[in-house]
Amino acid sequence: SEVKKIAVIAGDGIGPEVVREAEKVLKRTEELFGYRIETEHALFGGIAIDEKGTPLPEETLEVCKKADAVLLGAVGGPKWDNNPKELRPETGLLGIRKALGLFSNLRPAVVFDCLKDASTLKPEVLEGTDLIVVRELTGGIYFGEKFRRDSEQGQEAVDTCTYNVSEVERIVRQAFEIAGKRRKKLASVDKANVLETSRLWREVVNRVAPEYPDVELEHVLVDNCAMQLLRRPASFDVIVTENMFGDILSDEAAMLTGSIGMLSSASLGEGSFGLYEPVHGSAPDIAGQNKANPIATILSVALMFRMTFGYEDAADAIEKAVKDVLDAGHRTGDIAVDKAAAIGTDVMGDLIVAAM
Amino acid sequence: SEVKKIAVIAGDGIGPEVVREAEKVLKRTEELFGYRIETEHALFGGIAIDEKGTPLPEETLEVCKKADAVLLGAVGGPKWDNNPKELRPETGLLGIRKALGLFSNLRPAVVFDCLKDASTLKPEVLEGTDLIVVRELTGGIYFGEKFRRDSEQGQEAVDTCTYNVSEVERIVRQAFEIAGKRRKKLASVDKANVLETSRLWREVVNRVAPEYPDVELEHVLVDNCAMQLLRRPASFDVIVTENMFGDILSDEAAMLTGSIGMLSSASLGEGSFGLYEPVHGSAPDIAGQNKANPIATILSVALMFRMTFGYEDAADAIEKAVKDVLDAGHRTGDIAVDKAAAIGTDVMGDLIVAAM
Ligand SMILES: CC(C)[C@H](C(=O)O)[C@@H](O)C(=O)O
Ligand SMILES: CC(C)[C@H](C(=O)O)[C@@H](O)C(=O)O
Repeated sequence: SEVKKIAVIAGDGIGPEVVREAEKVLKRTEELFGYRIETEHALFGGIAIDEKGTPLPEETLEVCKKADAVLLGAVGGPKWDNNPKELRPETGLLGIRKALGLFSNLRPAVVFDCLKDASTLKPEVLEGTDLIVVRELTGGIYFGEKFRRDSEQGQEAVDTCTYNVSEVERIVRQAFEIAGKRRKKLASVDKANVLETSRLWREVVNRVAPEYPDVELEHVLVDNCAMQLLRRPASFDVIVTENMFGDILSDEAAMLTGSIGMLSSASLGEGSFGLYEPVHGSAPDIAGQNKANPIATILSVALMFRMTFGYEDAADAIEKAVKDVLDAGHRTGDIAVDKAAAIGTDVMGDLIVAAM
Repeated sequence: SEVKKIAVIAGDGIGPEVVREAEKVLKRTEELFGYRIETEHALFGGIAIDEKGTPLPEETLEVCKKADAVLLGAVGGPKWDNNPKELRPETGLLGIRKALGLFSNLRPAVVFDCLKDASTLKPEVLEGTDLIVVRELTGGIYFGEKFRRDSEQGQEAVDTCTYNVSEVERIVRQAFEIAGKRRKKLASVDKANVLETSRLWREVVNRVAPEYPDVELEHVLVDNCAMQLLRRPASFDVIVTENMFGDILSDEAAMLTGSIGMLSSASLGEGSFGLYEPVHGSAPDIAGQNKANPIATILSVALMFRMTFGYEDAADAIEKAVKDVLDAGHRTGDIAVDKAAAIGTDVMGDLIVAAM
């Protein structure tokens, strides 16, 4: 088969450790299924600030652009938290999303059987929760004009939130498509009773909706959605929303599953290109200690295989291996009930590879 | 004692029913404590649209301005949902906040003993949850310039989020004061890694903080806060944040207590003037059926007595009466386990009055 190129960005904190295990899985997939995968490493985030003086070096962007997909560990840490804006890992994150045209962030929030009790929600409320947040990723208040100016009441800061019809339409269509392949329910979240961008958003959703007659649509105000996620998480299938609301709601949704250490995400643009990464962060407190859970990153590889390469067999094999290893009782510290019996990052990776 | 004037705005849906019971409590307080209270009713919201052609008639604003405090039931309903902006109840709500200078919304999120099991969170997680969200209410993206313009990618909508130093400082100082009288912990929530308004917010918080050395301060990013509210609700004391984040987080916080039908809120300006209202909405589905729970509105009266009038004795008496009636097992439909035994709005009001 054709060679697939993956840009591998280990990043900061536990990033390099979890990515290392994911790469073992990539190798094993080649052996098992005959796929040909080429990886190229690139610097990004805090480590790129330290070594190249910028969170998103031009070379890194080139490596990503030449690749079919990007695998990202995690970026950021206290070391860079007080840097000026241009020298912060987050600035690299926003930059790479924009530069690669990754307008859509998919965050599946599912409950892992073995982690049912890890949620702070009652099991009967959580039962059946399997939703996906589709977050617009390159528009809104994240990318609008920002500045300071003087006012009579002291300095004033300004952020601008903009959305145009095509930005809304492409993400909304994608969400309808995804819902059509799932339980056929779409919740579009906005604040149309207050925001002009939300009114435009809702108009576009309503205009596009008739083209997807089999998908049941509801409009939910963002404050109400924050409540309903808590009250009836299992009733949601696909949630589509703008960048800032998506940031908040996808984290809330992830946390309520209790499985946040195991969740993967995809950021997609036009075509099949995508950037895949675990939902969890760089966890600087346990970095370099072989304690991190590599499963979210390994499942990000499965997601990449499924969504960008169409390698369903390999994706299935990875997901099944993860399930088997968990069913056999193996746990890293974050998900272990008996912390003393927790295994290391590397052992977890090896077990999953062996189970494939 | 001096006569206190309360502007009473019943509003829409269940508003008139719950306000009627709160007024019984007002009367009983006069009898019991010798306070002198004068109420004046005013039209607001949907009913004002129907009768006066605007959600916030000039007379209503005058009544409020002459008063020492405002008691509000609830506004809105499907009838007005598709109206043009100027003819929507929400527009009246934003208008009254601005016109009365109500820059601060206080939303206590507490767990009522009798409703412990109503939460979707596990009881052991909820244990001890008693927090208050201090939301900035007259700034930010709610009140910034909004418009449409043409762009090369179709029509474009724009919302502007602005905050100046004094707007941030007054709400932040109020939050520090409140925290100082409680468990002395303040979480300031922003998105300083992305937004300029959040960076200004954080600068102001850090500048003011040394004046409140006994209050322990943490900065929490809004996405992380949405998660931490779920993971460790009891660890929060006071949360202060800007308007849009506050809208989302205060609803999330209210819902996780499981007590949303019982929560009251205060919107304050300079001085002692305040607007008090239940957290729940106008519930058009049960309006006019004598099914609504009047407790949140009755507790809003207690909050008004405490915060605006300094009538601690009356506030205590109301809160104790509510507790006694609940302890005796009386329930409206929304909080009844045995729905058949549920009592009506009016009976609940009468029982509380009798228990005072
Ligand atoms: C780090 C930050 C800029 C980023 C965001 O807000 O998009 C993060 O929270 C995320 O969700 O990927
Ligand atoms: C109705 C709406 C405009 C309002 C708001 O967003 O402020 C409501 O959600 C609230 O929290 O009081």
